[in-house]
Amino acid sequence: MIKVSILGSGNVAQHLALAIKNIQLSHDGVQLLQVFARQPINASFVSYDKIISSFDDLLFADVFIIAVSDVAIATVANQIPYKDSLIVHTSGASSIEEIQSARKGVFYPLQTFTKGKEINFKNVPVCIEATNTDDKNLLLEIAKSISNNVQIITSEQRKILHLAAVFVNNFTNYMYQIGSDLCSENNLDFTLLHPIITETANKISAISPKNAQTGPAIRGDKKTIKMHENSIKNPDFLTIYQTLTKAIQRNGEKL
Amino acid sequence: MIKVSILGSGNVAQHLALAIKNIQLSHDGVQLLQVFARQPINASFVSYDKIISSFDDLLFADVFIIAVSDVAIATVANQIPYKDSLIVHTSGASSIEEIQSARKGVFYPLQTFTKGKEINFKNVPVCIEATNTDDKNLLLEIAKSISNNVQIITSEQRKILHLAAVFVNNFTNYMYQIGSDLCSENNLDFTLLHPIITETANKISAISPKNAQTGPAIRGDKKTIKMHENSIKNPDFLTIYQTLTKAIQRNGEKL
Repeated sequence: MIKVSILGSGNVAQHLALAIKNIQLSHDGVQLLQVFARQPINASFVSYDKIISSFDDLLFADVFIIAVSDVAIATVANQIPYKDSLIVHTSGASSIEEIQSARKGVFYPLQTFTKGKEINFKNVPVCIEATNTDDKNLLLEIAKSISNNVQIITSEQRKILHLAAVFVNNFTNYMYQIGSDLCSENNLDFTLLHPIITETANKISAISPKNAQTGPAIRGDKKTIKMHENSIKNPDFLTIYQTLTKAIQRNGEKL
Repeated sequence: MIKVSILGSGNVAQHLALAIKNIQLSHDGVQLLQVFARQPINASFVSYDKIISSFDDLLFADVFIIAVSDVAIATVANQIPYKDSLIVHTSGASSIEEIQSARKGVFYPLQTFTKGKEINFKNVPVCIEATNTDDKNLLLEIAKSISNNVQIITSEQRKILHLAAVFVNNFTNYMYQIGSDLCSENNLDFTLLHPIITETANKISAISPKNAQTGPAIRGDKKTIKMHENSIKNPDFLTIYQTLTKAIQRNGEKL
């Protein structure tokens, strides 16, 4: 039985704890021992007896998973008194070296988590990194018990994956926000755009984004582009429209 | 029985024809009469006896739906000899005035269509415009027979919806392409990003894009932003990263 404790009570910590708790029910070899939360109320996603809010109460575990904001990783790691345990963080953007311990690693779930919105963790890619083979295998065992998509990657690859996630998640969400703002300024219901948003996302399972690219930019439809530019009142939105239109056109020419 | 003919054989024409054909099976009051395609082979989505490739073979219909590229709408409309019929186009970006006929309108399905990829038309918002009430009602009847989401909108609203669709569809797809390029440059499988892409799209049904915004830009995480900027080799991608980061930050400050 691998004993795992989670430090943190945010979105990642919550979804990870629930995923590990669920496999326990199926009598797998991984056990969620404790969840550390400065405010115990924030960790109500696990049973009360597992929640601790002082490092003095931290029991020995085989693996400690630190799921806190990037800036707090090093501080939290330094307070774990079990020097022989494996300590990992869950951040896409932080170096493995944030952890000073001899046995260290990264357990990066590549997904956007929303508090209270359930997710099927089996479909969440988990990207793993560790400094030695035994620790990689240990993380593999934990990851495979909760996800069907586990990858061992390098630090450099993780950095790129996190960057790519900023484009496909953060920036895409901002495109939705612009769509939403344009709708509300013009008495239009943003839900009118929901079907095209989900279909655009689903489409890439069938064809590559390059082949899926449509619209006035890739068509070189100057008349429509001009009309759109004249319709945009927000200067940020106009700059974004023009920057992306140019990039799509340059990229299209390369084909 | 309302007789409808479609002029065009592209993605919109195909999906519209299939949707109307399907309601016929359920004995509704709308009938697909003919599909005009310059190359009959392109219209193989309907039975052969319905396909015509010469305007001489065009029979009288109550409504002619022109689903061709924006630049060809006026030319096609002018070749329809039935001056008492209602003629509409399906374009988000074209003026209703592209049609010279006395009875004219717009039948704009707000979705991205892919040839060969089936779609449930019942969920596709259809935005309708016409110059008189009778024609609006006629279009409403046709639209409601194929979609559960029909809206009467103004020309100005349609222009804005089309612009919003460029952001949430064309530009979002380009974000996916950047993600895909970053992956392939670094020997990473783009399918690793598929779950976060679909979850990002699904999320907005639960919370607004404004509340869903996460990432280094909105957090003001200068360290990660700097690291990302240093990782991006393509100058277009860097400009996009910086433009969107600044816009998200400015927009966040307004909250």
